Amino acid sequence: MQVHGLETPMTDPILLTPGPLTTSATVKQAMLHDWGSRDREFIAINKRVRERLVALAGGEGSHVCVPTQGSGTFAVEAMIGTLVPKAGKLLVLINGAYGRRAAKICDHAGRAHRDLEWAEDKPVEAAKVAAALKADAAITHVFAVHCETTTGILNPIAEVAEVVAAAGRKLLIDAMSAFGAVPLNAREVPFEAVAASSNKCIEGVHGVGFVIVSGAAIAAARGNAHALSLDLHDQWTTMEKTGQWRFTPPIHVIAAFDQALREHAAEGGVAGRHARYRRNCRLLVDGMRALGFETLLPDRLQAPIIVTFLMPADPRFAFEQFYDRLRDKGFVIYPGKLTVADSFRIGCIGAIGETEMRAALTAIAATLADIGVTTGAPAQPRQSA
Amino acid sequence: MQVHGLETPMTDPILLTPGPLTTSATVKQAMLHDWGSRDREFIAINKRVRERLVALAGGEGSHVCVPTQGSGTFAVEAMIGTLVPKAGKLLVLINGAYGRRAAKICDHAGRAHRDLEWAEDKPVEAAKVAAALKADAAITHVFAVHCETTTGILNPIAEVAEVVAAAGRKLLIDAMSAFGAVPLNAREVPFEAVAASSNKCIEGVHGVGFVIVSGAAIAAARGNAHALSLDLHDQWTTMEKTGQWRFTPPIHVIAAFDQALREHAAEGGVAGRHARYRRNCRLLVDGMRALGFETLLPDRLQAPIIVTFLMPADPRFAFEQFYDRLRDKGFVIYPGKLTVADSFRIGCIGAIGETEMRAALTAIAATLADIGVTTGAPAQPRQSA
Repeated sequence: MQVHGLETPMTDPILLTPGPLTTSATVKQAMLHDWGSRDREFIAINKRVRERLVALAGGEGSHVCVPTQGSGTFAVEAMIGTLVPKAGKLLVLINGAYGRRAAKICDHAGRAHRDLEWAEDKPVEAAKVAAALKADAAITHVFAVHCETTTGILNPIAEVAEVVAAAGRKLLIDAMSAFGAVPLNAREVPFEAVAASSNKCIEGVHGVGFVIVSGAAIAAARGNAHALSLDLHDQWTTMEKTGQWRFTPPIHVIAAFDQALREHAAEGGVAGRHARYRRNCRLLVDGMRALGFETLLPDRLQAPIIVTFLMPADPRFAFEQFYDRLRDKGFVIYPGKLTVADSFRIGCIGAIGETEMRAALTAIAATLADIGVTTGAPAQPRQSA
Repeated sequence: MQVHGLETPMTDPILLTPGPLTTSATVKQAMLHDWGSRDREFIAINKRVRERLVALAGGEGSHVCVPTQGSGTFAVEAMIGTLVPKAGKLLVLINGAYGRRAAKICDHAGRAHRDLEWAEDKPVEAAKVAAALKADAAITHVFAVHCETTTGILNPIAEVAEVVAAAGRKLLIDAMSAFGAVPLNAREVPFEAVAASSNKCIEGVHGVGFVIVSGAAIAAARGNAHALSLDLHDQWTTMEKTGQWRFTPPIHVIAAFDQALREHAAEGGVAGRHARYRRNCRLLVDGMRALGFETLLPDRLQAPIIVTFLMPADPRFAFEQFYDRLRDKGFVIYPGKLTVADSFRIGCIGAIGETEMRAALTAIAATLADIGVTTGAPAQPRQSA
């Protein structure tokens, strides 16, 4: 259970999920202290966290980091509500649940939107985005998901960014499950804002989201937000003035996030984390295929974050039972969220490495044997390489 | 440093603030584990937490608990946005910053509101609420703050509830800094909903808010909310169906909250906690008066939560310096938030008891001596008993 020198207690299950995920012991131990939210020491932690996040996105000098309480969805909703003006219009690119959620956010917030949809196992296409922008002059902003956690598909964010910039519109990215492990650099990929959270590839604990936003855009966003709690302009103004949060922050979560960012840097930043997740993903996909399972996606579309497997055809395979027996062996996997096929998901992210991935595969093989299933092969195999 | 048998490490300062506050070692240690958010064990934790909170408010059979990510303000905004229909109108009772914040929430959410204001050192008055309700038939809901953390004043919530019920309107309560230590029982005080958070008198860590809401009201609230993330009806529907949160919850914060609720019960519930805070408050007020300080409020209006002291008249007293030196001695206090007088605040809540309060008073006396101030007496003394 050794991941960059840290021991995970054997009593906790390994979380092979898209978050909450397994965190290092040192990240959790950072929560064993209390801080005053207006105290200098805590203000210094926040400053450090914000600066590191901007640097991870290559946004030094152009972008600022505005953190927000809550889950990733809170950060995404704050980004949309604060940056798309009341008279603006959002083109929402949808190939999974998180694109659909952005459209739902627009409905709540009263923002006009046009939805452009693809099948869940297909990446979004920049050419269709360009055509949609050409066809509708009212569109001011485009929303795209970097890695759609619904399937684990990697969308071609650089191509999308290029056509959005060429059309003179602004790009808002939900990089929830990718940020910190899949490269995204503001100097190469033009975006107005990107939203993510503490508990995905940075491997902090859950409870804080953040938006890396162009300084010009946040300065111009006064009065846009549809909710006080989600008003990033207000939050940014207070933070710039005092270094403090507007409303009480989750201090323990932020202390853990600070430690997680330190460990992220020690592992070699985005490149180092990406390399470990790629290895985890390769081991998982190869091992599962050896057991007869099929991935939903061909390898070239697969982000090294979470992998969707098609449900085996064998009638003895019942997912609930498979999940429970695997849980008893110490591994938590994730149900599917697909509309196109019956499936389940296994994550590659968190404070886990080769040891945990191999142990998970051994447990999966043993579980199949327990329930008398000889192959994970689905009813209708797909081309998966 | 013994509080109900738990040791607080000497290295952390004692937080004499309205939250984040000092938590027990065992509450923090509950965060040393990772849980899957859709796993049975975690679902059981959530069920237990929600049931305990409903019981604390005397809401069994009539009310349900809907938790939400974020700070207390997120819970208050979710309560207002979800329960006041788009065509509704809120009478906001204001005698401090948290009443004013509710009015600001209405402006963001597009809810009509009428504000009824009192001076910050005066409690709200039920008779004036009754008159306002009589005068404006469009008002559907009333918003009141139980303990206004701005000053520490206790508002007469039972009297307000009575006139609101008599006028056939609905009462929404912000009990942020009072819930769990100042009695509030739905069987005696009619309210539609009350909002509070994990990190005040329950002594959990920060990051989760909750609303205890009448079952009939939440069932009727579909489609009201102005923000997806703050839609309590949607959150409640999902929780009732699956036992799970809609969006990823802060699992470590919730595990700590579960432990904090266990310790709250072990101390004798609301009555036990109230008794300890009263003792803390008595020690603090008597000790500070002995040093010459004056409280803003007379004792009869003071909630045993946080005490506002008037700034001493001695020109050698500079608050920043006083704060820093006290911080160096291990005690964090809180700046004032008053518009009516220059002041600072000291909290009585958190995992602290007589030992910590006496140590704080000793440190305050030593700090006054350090900076050459002989009395904490303000320029214009007030009647404070």
